[in-house]
Amino acid sequence: MTAPTGTTAPGASFAPIEYADASPEVRAIYDDIMASRKTDWINNFWKYLAHDPQNLRRIWSDLKEVMGPGVLDPLTKELIYMAVSITTGCRYCIASHGASAWAKGMSAAQYGELLAIVGLANQTNRLAVALDVPVDERFRT
Amino acid sequence: MTAPTGTTAPGASFAPIEYADASPEVRAIYDDIMASRKTDWINNFWKYLAHDPQNLRRIWSDLKEVMGPGVLDPLTKELIYMAVSITTGCRYCIASHGASAWAKGMSAAQYGELLAIVGLANQTNRLAVALDVPVDERFRT
Amino acid sequence: MTAPTGTTAPGASFAPIEYADASPEVRAIYDDIMASRKTDWINNFWKYLAHDPQNLRRIWSDLKEVMGPGVLDPLTKELIYMAVSITTGCRYCIASHGASAWAKGMSAAQYGELLAIVGLANQTNRLAVALDVPVDERFRT
Amino acid sequence: MTAPTGTTAPGASFAPIEYADASPEVRAIYDDIMASRKTDWINNFWKYLAHDPQNLRRIWSDLKEVMGPGVLDPLTKELIYMAVSITTGCRYCIASHGASAWAKGMSAAQYGELLAIVGLANQTNRLAVALDVPVDERFRT
Amino acid sequence: MTAPTGTTAPGASFAPIEYADASPEVRAIYDDIMASRKTDWINNFWKYLAHDPQNLRRIWSDLKEVMGPGVLDPLTKELIYMAVSITTGCRYCIASHGASAWAKGMSAAQYGELLAIVGLANQTNRLAVALDVPVDERFRT
Amino acid sequence: MTAPTGTTAPGASFAPIEYADASPEVRAIYDDIMASRKTDWINNFWKYLAHDPQNLRRIWSDLKEVMGPGVLDPLTKELIYMAVSITTGCRYCIASHGASAWAKGMSAAQYGELLAIVGLANQTNRLAVALDVPVDERFRT
Repeated sequence: MTAPTGTTAPGASFAPIEYADASPEVRAIYDDIMASRKTDWINNFWKYLAHDPQNLRRIWSDLKEVMGPGVLDPLTKELIYMAVSITTGCRYCIASHGASAWAKGMSAAQYGELLAIVGLANQTNRLAVALDVPVDERFRT
Repeated sequence: MTAPTGTTAPGASFAPIEYADASPEVRAIYDDIMASRKTDWINNFWKYLAHDPQNLRRIWSDLKEVMGPGVLDPLTKELIYMAVSITTGCRYCIASHGASAWAKGMSAAQYGELLAIVGLANQTNRLAVALDVPVDERFRT
Repeated sequence: MTAPTGTTAPGASFAPIEYADASPEVRAIYDDIMASRKTDWINNFWKYLAHDPQNLRRIWSDLKEVMGPGVLDPLTKELIYMAVSITTGCRYCIASHGASAWAKGMSAAQYGELLAIVGLANQTNRLAVALDVPVDERFRT
Repeated sequence: MTAPTGTTAPGASFAPIEYADASPEVRAIYDDIMASRKTDWINNFWKYLAHDPQNLRRIWSDLKEVMGPGVLDPLTKELIYMAVSITTGCRYCIASHGASAWAKGMSAAQYGELLAIVGLANQTNRLAVALDVPVDERFRT
Repeated sequence: MTAPTGTTAPGASFAPIEYADASPEVRAIYDDIMASRKTDWINNFWKYLAHDPQNLRRIWSDLKEVMGPGVLDPLTKELIYMAVSITTGCRYCIASHGASAWAKGMSAAQYGELLAIVGLANQTNRLAVALDVPVDERFRT
Repeated sequence: MTAPTGTTAPGASFAPIEYADASPEVRAIYDDIMASRKTDWINNFWKYLAHDPQNLRRIWSDLKEVMGPGVLDPLTKELIYMAVSITTGCRYCIASHGASAWAKGMSAAQYGELLAIVGLANQTNRLAVALDVPVDERFRT
């Protein structure tokens, strides 16, 4: 989305905010992203989100915490992220989290199984809803 | 959903089809489900789907293949299934696949991380779509 | 949803508006619904929507036009309505449009095929999105 | 979507219907759109919808009524429209209602807050559904 | 999505798998698709899905069964498929199933009615959910 | 969802965590929620989320920031939250954010307009996607 010409809204231009043009506040967040990910570049999602530095800060903080080391291994976390992104249909997210998954060691066979499960789950979800299936007693214990 | 009284549609009653009342065709599928899952009971999803034996056969065949042994371990497969079910909002599926996940060894900590990722992914998906973020060149190679 | 006690919002109570308690404006719409559908009762959807008579009027007008006689036969129209309601997960809509479909002659076999298609479409939709399949040239002519 | 070559369906070409090529019925609706919006052009949504003049008429009538003067101010109405469009992922709608919002005075700060709320709501919605949180008693009064 | 350069994942390239480059297993499935559909070409969906031959086999088998001859006529089946694809927002699916529908005899008037129903259903679904409308007693019989 | 009996997962019971039973860490968050909202009770969403104190902390922190004072007034923020919750179909969220909106001064007329916009937007979103409407040039400036 772009702000129409002649808008008086500051910072409404929606070109990505490159590191070179970023405020010190935004640069600090970019630095943390690159340090955490051990990369030397910032992807478009952050560069577009950066138009609102509070959103950038909060979302990066959340992602760093949620996708950081935990009990689930890094690849499993990406597979879960991809499952959601495919289900909601976010093209950018499918591409970026797909790239992450490959980088974290996903194999073609794992990718095929992920697709199979996501597709099938979207199917059985609708069948269960259509049939208004009551939750089994033993699932409630 | 229930068929109104006085309908001439055969088999339109939507009570679950119990093993004792099932046709030989449906019983054979029930037997295969119990054998594959090493259980002695059939959950409601199958008992409601069984009103259309072709659907029951095809969906069970798909699920057996997709959720069977593969390169992803069984718990990871359930986590992916849960991620989709939470995103689409299927209450039955969340309950039944949640139960499966616990049975396959999911810990409370893993469950907490699953929730965290699914919630966050649903958030960042919408942000990326709202901002119409273009896919980075390096994701296209 | 209910309005909290002590609210000063007029008409905020969310009990359904029964014919006997309805304003002349709402009764006129209820009369038209019953006349069009050749029934002697009003279902809950209209009785809850009636809290905002403008919404009731506009939505009934739209539905009467869209679900009225056309080139698609009445049952086909209900099947399409059910396909959407199952996909979005609206429990009330699945029940009410399911009842309509049975009343318009849907058979159990047709219902089974509807479920099969809706389930499968929800699956293949996600696969196509996941794989970012480009639209074939010949589909663009 | 385009109709394949050689189709016998009249009006199946899916090029937008420009004012100059429109029927008197469609032109009348275009005129009303421009008069209501105080503009001298028609956007693509209407020009594609116009292939079915009944749909064009009904949808414009609904939009004119719903987005016209009311108790919610015009910008708030656009923010709500954007919230839905982002959640469903309609790229065209995000662009066109975003443009409307800017035109109605949305500031960059307001846009940032809108994004923040829409993102967070999509997150907490899934968490509440995943946990099957029962509605609190006091919300039912 | 594309696998990054230097990946060690076999078959991770995401160019479509053309007939000429396909394995005997995949060619056999392509042959069956063309024979069933009485065509001499394979659309992109299958050529991208073919990276995982198991998925290709299973999905084609499901689609052939579900969209094959049944009690619903072929065009009605496509209309249902389109209703789902529009609701989930799968651009590829809308294009390919739209093309199928035209080929199976859909008229412009039928297409207009399909759009009208899908749009309206998506609206009333949300209204029923917002108002938490309870299912009428008579729909439960 | 409930953990099956005999699970070894600590804290897997899914009864809500009441203040009296909460750990000091969770109580501190409950205290902050009540102080910020000027209430003396905790709603079910937080009591179920509290099973994972990290999730509780992070989500409350996000919500406090996003729904706190800003450039959008508090009621407008709730209307946006409701628009998303209705669109995704989260019954709990519709109830709790509806209650918040009433408490923040929403009138029945405002509620009626909110419903009207959310319903209509869900409709036009699907029409724009179905017709694959290209974004107008002037929206890209």
